[in-house]
Amino acid sequence: MVVVGGGFGGLEFAKSMAGADVDLTLIDRENHHCFQPLLYQVATAALSPAEVAWPIRAILRKQANATVLMAEVTGIDRAAQTVVAGGKVIPYDYLVVATGATHSYFGHDDWAAVAPGLKRIEDATRIRRNILLAFERAELTDDLDERGRLLNFVVVGGGATGVELAGAISEVARQTLARDFRRVDPRTACIVVVEAGPRLLPAFPEDLSDYARKMLEKMGCEIRVNTRVTGVDPHGVDSSEGRIAAGTILWAAGVMASPAAAWLGAEADRAGRVRVTTGLSLPDDDKIFVIGDTAAVSGPDGKPVPGIAPAAKQMGSYAAEAIRANLVGRATAPFSYSHGGDLATIGRKAAVVKIGRMKLTGLLGWLAWSLAHVYFLIGVRNRLIVALSWAWTYLTFQRGVRLVTLQPDPFGFAGRPDKPSAAQMDYMKPEAEEVAAKRLS
Amino acid sequence: MVVVGGGFGGLEFAKSMAGADVDLTLIDRENHHCFQPLLYQVATAALSPAEVAWPIRAILRKQANATVLMAEVTGIDRAAQTVVAGGKVIPYDYLVVATGATHSYFGHDDWAAVAPGLKRIEDATRIRRNILLAFERAELTDDLDERGRLLNFVVVGGGATGVELAGAISEVARQTLARDFRRVDPRTACIVVVEAGPRLLPAFPEDLSDYARKMLEKMGCEIRVNTRVTGVDPHGVDSSEGRIAAGTILWAAGVMASPAAAWLGAEADRAGRVRVTTGLSLPDDDKIFVIGDTAAVSGPDGKPVPGIAPAAKQMGSYAAEAIRANLVGRATAPFSYSHGGDLATIGRKAAVVKIGRMKLTGLLGWLAWSLAHVYFLIGVRNRLIVALSWAWTYLTFQRGVRLVTLQPDPFGFAGRPDKPSAAQMDYMKPEAEEVAAKRLS
Repeated sequence: MVVVGGGFGGLEFAKSMAGADVDLTLIDRENHHCFQPLLYQVATAALSPAEVAWPIRAILRKQANATVLMAEVTGIDRAAQTVVAGGKVIPYDYLVVATGATHSYFGHDDWAAVAPGLKRIEDATRIRRNILLAFERAELTDDLDERGRLLNFVVVGGGATGVELAGAISEVARQTLARDFRRVDPRTACIVVVEAGPRLLPAFPEDLSDYARKMLEKMGCEIRVNTRVTGVDPHGVDSSEGRIAAGTILWAAGVMASPAAAWLGAEADRAGRVRVTTGLSLPDDDKIFVIGDTAAVSGPDGKPVPGIAPAAKQMGSYAAEAIRANLVGRATAPFSYSHGGDLATIGRKAAVVKIGRMKLTGLLGWLAWSLAHVYFLIGVRNRLIVALSWAWTYLTFQRGVRLVTLQPDPFGFAGRPDKPSAAQMDYMKPEAEEVAAKRLS
Repeated sequence: MVVVGGGFGGLEFAKSMAGADVDLTLIDRENHHCFQPLLYQVATAALSPAEVAWPIRAILRKQANATVLMAEVTGIDRAAQTVVAGGKVIPYDYLVVATGATHSYFGHDDWAAVAPGLKRIEDATRIRRNILLAFERAELTDDLDERGRLLNFVVVGGGATGVELAGAISEVARQTLARDFRRVDPRTACIVVVEAGPRLLPAFPEDLSDYARKMLEKMGCEIRVNTRVTGVDPHGVDSSEGRIAAGTILWAAGVMASPAAAWLGAEADRAGRVRVTTGLSLPDDDKIFVIGDTAAVSGPDGKPVPGIAPAAKQMGSYAAEAIRANLVGRATAPFSYSHGGDLATIGRKAAVVKIGRMKLTGLLGWLAWSLAHVYFLIGVRNRLIVALSWAWTYLTFQRGVRLVTLQPDPFGFAGRPDKPSAAQMDYMKPEAEEVAAKRLS
């Protein structure tokens, strides 16, 4: 059998098949599983990429029935029951599609070049670079208007990712970088959260939304609800409530499923998610399962299952159970999602947690959030280093991963620091990304 | 005054000016100081980039007379006494040039695209990607010849960097990855060190060279001395002793100074280093100092000062002293280099150390090497995390930073995992780097 995708769903599926008398191939285009809930900490210089990622091979090393292939899936042939990946044709009896989701720019794909979203390690290092370079550029310029613009950060989307990014950028500006510049005062940076809906954190109860809003405002963020983004360019954002000039724009708004529906020739909902049966398989093929953010599934209450890690893991372990049952001719009860809770952190000693009827905010919420996230990280080493990094940041207000790394290649630069190209010299300019994108397209 | 370059020399100079009644601007095109001696550990997945790099701003935060600018220097106007950087014109009274060195491909600049050297963080992540992808590609291919080629690694150059890279790649193959693949056995990987001279580690006494050779051979490396590389292509290396097919080629051979001589209109030696007086200034301008790998300086014994971190630091602190003396009209004694020693690590419990007349090998050498390197790292956090990472690698044989990160942009890919470009799908092929380089040139 083949599982495509080594995210929370695919990996949980593979692990749940441990010991079964099957031959399982997990295909992912990355060599690592990424712990997305902490990706915003990579983007804001608190953690290194490797601390939220773990090689899929290492995770499945001891599972003898599992083979891992690092390859890009380019097609699925349902008639021939094969997956084409990395030039290889891999036959399957059962197929599990767990390819996750990506950002949705609501039909404005060109916004992606200016306003990166946060799904992969590369997104996080790119956002980190954008944030840190904004301050560097502000220090460099003599134009006061431009300096003001460069110190404006817009986060589009007021869900958990948007709130976490905004809070962390505020801490970077007000604590980490506070005394590092001579010409600009990073504490004057303005972080604007633009949310189309009426409040932040729509998945949470209203009082927790209010708390998040108050905390962010206390940290110097500006919250604009009921505001739709109508345009994005390198110099700012147009919204239903007017223009916001900004040097850095981050996208934490829409999510869209990976194009698995097209691969499978299956029916999809508006967000591109494959419509599956209550058994998480295709309506016309009970040997093909679709799980995680790629699947449109409803909970027992009829509400859609949210696109979060615990949901993907539950689906992964359900699919494994269903296949194990199918192999011995047993039937399986329909998938039933159990919601553990919602957590979002805002900043130092401030988080919102809702588990069952329990609500936590402030220091307690923050501790609960921290423990939960360290607990779910893979590997003792990552847990140790993440805990150490957090303790460090907590005690010193410093962030240890303030690296601006060039993507060397877009600048025609291959290990030759002595010969900067024209584009490389330009890289401090906000237009550089556009230029690079154009030259590459 | 202006100092160009935040490496060992430039940073030591800036720190040595602390408290002086001067106005110092340090310009670097990176935002971070890189601890190059440990860069090979980033390239071989043992450490994260941020663990060997530290923001220059953070280092100089408390030094009120220092301003840091992240900008690319594009020219020096000696007549006007200005440095042009990031579009700004910065006047200087004293100028310190500490722009370091880069790889030299002996006139074959096209080899750079295939055989990266190791000077910057981006070089290290690129090499890490090449090494890890070689194993992934070997697992994926069905062509046995190709598989054999992919498991061949060539390190060009048998100095400290070459020896350290070869030893670390051998450990990655024989320990870290040993049980991670199903179709290939990483332990069969062959690491070939090609050295033009008669022995490894020419800076060390002969018995330590012999020890390094024996240890590397024991770890499965092949050492070819008296062998000149005559050609480099994506499929292997041509040498004076014949062809070596390889999937990964790393460059640890020649070094060439940054082009400061051209900027300054000054005389350079064959390696591009500026010829300076015994006071480290230009023969025709005692207000311009050139230090570190950019300067051609001889020691008291007439031998050239080596291009290592301690030498650069000594020159940085000498230049500061000379300027402080000059400011009050005092003269300074000529620069005198004092050689602390030589250290190179080979692998687990194996390193060679020569300090004065003391020679260490084996476990003792390895401990001395480890302590020295942790001690010289900047920042308590980095020391803690590096020590923890090493303890972890030592105990478990695992390496925590086994990340293959795409350089997303070369593949025309901007945060849109759902739409891989043709080039992106090709990235598993060894030719991809060439293709990307071509498209960008």
